[in-house]
Amino acid sequence: MYNSYLKDIKTYEAGKPIELVVREFGIESQDVVKLASNENPLGCSEKVAQAIASSAQKASLYPDDSMYELKEALSLRFGVTAKEIIIGAGSDQVLEFISHVVLNSASKILRSAVTFAMYDIYAKQFGAQILTTPSYQHIADEFIEKIESANPDIIYICTPNNPTGDATTREEVFKIINAASKDSLVVVDCAYMEYVEEEEYKLVPKDFINCDNVIYLGTFSKAFGLGGMRVGYGIANENIINMLYKVRPPFNISSLSLLAAIEASHDIDFVTKSVALNREEMKRYIDFAKKYEIEYIPSKTNFITLLFDEKHNSSEIATNLMKKGVIIRDLASYGLNAIRITIGTKSQNSKLFEVLSQELQYRESIESKTV
Amino acid sequence: MYNSYLKDIKTYEAGKPIELVVREFGIESQDVVKLASNENPLGCSEKVAQAIASSAQKASLYPDDSMYELKEALSLRFGVTAKEIIIGAGSDQVLEFISHVVLNSASKILRSAVTFAMYDIYAKQFGAQILTTPSYQHIADEFIEKIESANPDIIYICTPNNPTGDATTREEVFKIINAASKDSLVVVDCAYMEYVEEEEYKLVPKDFINCDNVIYLGTFSKAFGLGGMRVGYGIANENIINMLYKVRPPFNISSLSLLAAIEASHDIDFVTKSVALNREEMKRYIDFAKKYEIEYIPSKTNFITLLFDEKHNSSEIATNLMKKGVIIRDLASYGLNAIRITIGTKSQNSKLFEVLSQELQYRESIESKTV
Repeated sequence: MYNSYLKDIKTYEAGKPIELVVREFGIESQDVVKLASNENPLGCSEKVAQAIASSAQKASLYPDDSMYELKEALSLRFGVTAKEIIIGAGSDQVLEFISHVVLNSASKILRSAVTFAMYDIYAKQFGAQILTTPSYQHIADEFIEKIESANPDIIYICTPNNPTGDATTREEVFKIINAASKDSLVVVDCAYMEYVEEEEYKLVPKDFINCDNVIYLGTFSKAFGLGGMRVGYGIANENIINMLYKVRPPFNISSLSLLAAIEASHDIDFVTKSVALNREEMKRYIDFAKKYEIEYIPSKTNFITLLFDEKHNSSEIATNLMKKGVIIRDLASYGLNAIRITIGTKSQNSKLFEVLSQELQYRESIESKTV
Repeated sequence: MYNSYLKDIKTYEAGKPIELVVREFGIESQDVVKLASNENPLGCSEKVAQAIASSAQKASLYPDDSMYELKEALSLRFGVTAKEIIIGAGSDQVLEFISHVVLNSASKILRSAVTFAMYDIYAKQFGAQILTTPSYQHIADEFIEKIESANPDIIYICTPNNPTGDATTREEVFKIINAASKDSLVVVDCAYMEYVEEEEYKLVPKDFINCDNVIYLGTFSKAFGLGGMRVGYGIANENIINMLYKVRPPFNISSLSLLAAIEASHDIDFVTKSVALNREEMKRYIDFAKKYEIEYIPSKTNFITLLFDEKHNSSEIATNLMKKGVIIRDLASYGLNAIRITIGTKSQNSKLFEVLSQELQYRESIESKTV
């Protein structure tokens, strides 16, 4: 009955929400510090919260499916036209549209060695094969070698990259784009772009709008503080957007999500404040890493990735932190002995430093005893 | 670059929101009566609105992706296990999952002549062919003939049916299910089931849970008043649900949608009140139709379909009502000279009766002059 290319996809196993697991360790939910999902530690804009609260009764009404106002806001922000924009339930859903229109069981995607997990998930959902470069960084020469040898149908450039935090220079991005076949689609995923400071790493949709085979992705989930509302967007030339619209379901974001994204677009001060806090607190993480001599990937995002040597095991550290009420992301499933920590509020970060330093010192002490 | 089976899908053309169109006729938005989308005229439960308002700040936090509490509520309501449930962004998204796992360009779906438009939309998105029975009603013999001659991969039974409002008896539904090949999936779409009164038309998920190839769909969009939040569900045996989970994206409904559906599940009084209002007001529509000698389809839902004879043109009527600030659904695109009207509040319905009777009398008077 079912499409055969789906047979290798692992079957979902519903786990308990992690908050419940932590509660089982005797920690009250208000004491849990969750630095695992790169949510905005400031929450959302007060204006967004007010707009949602005063429109709660609109839960019964279908949203404006043309998303007229939201597209207007994005048009103004990025200097593109409404016809060059598609809205998704998170940029995730735009990735799904892209995968749907391009991929089938004869297709291939190309991505860096460690990058956003959804590229693979959607590739598998459409039966495509996954190719990777050797490095987690997006190194043009590595991409070009694979492009020339395998001609992938979709090429993913995630910059800044998740879950590593590094970014790719504009120059390097264009080297990859210029090497790509005109028959392949290049996806430049910029979910964390609002956090980037250095000019050479900054990318905007207009950089690619005249390219026939490039799409820029952005999201309201991070700097705009709407992780829970699931609103993202793709911006590209009209031909690409028209293709994606063929597989977009009507009403693909909720009424309140639409409203929240429109309000969030009008509160750039909130984004500025979020980015400023992130910058300040990131310095403390770097100091912490240096003090404890932990290797880290310099980050252009709202998270930092700590790389452990053989003395430490990232999964054990993650579990032990969880027992103390601090949830971070173990990167073992990405093949890294590393953890990814979302930059939180000042007090959340202090708590993280406290429990992580305890954990590291405890392990050092075991180590010195066993040697 | 793109999958060839998509080439025949019409490209989306963004229209202005209908509210804006009406405003251009000089009608203020508070005076517009929208009876076009089968939204709940009572809005949503007050408890839902309060829960959303007091949790608006949670817009930044990703939802519990296991949807533990919502599944618990549905398990209790329907007497099934959490493993037999999948949640979608509207039951629409469950239709998408179903289409994705079953369909490809060699597949066929079977539906009644006039039914929910999304079946075709998703079939086309996966390249499948669409077969229809002669009648808009779900007549088992018509389905069986097509099943025997064409062996469709998905068979859709929409009961009560949208946009016609009629329902199919349990006996007739099971005749179709029993005739279906074990290699095909039967989808029993019960989005409007809460409005059904007569025992012989009532269906519950448990009726099908032991079937290997049947899935029951339900939604929070109608009687539960959450049209704008996009929450629906599929209930079937675990094997089917596991397959659908392979193509479910993580976080497929927003945090506030999840919260709203959980709260709505706990306020059955609101549903009872909504259904009672609908029943009362439906009587007025029937009286109206009889008075003006308009043919109608007896409805088991929260809408009624009026069928016009050659004296009237449904599209003209819809446009003229719109100019007077009343929005209803023209069914010309379904091949019917008919309009579908959502049963509104008492005052909304009075307004509809007023403008529709004016329109009909005006047209009668033109008719009598030209004859």
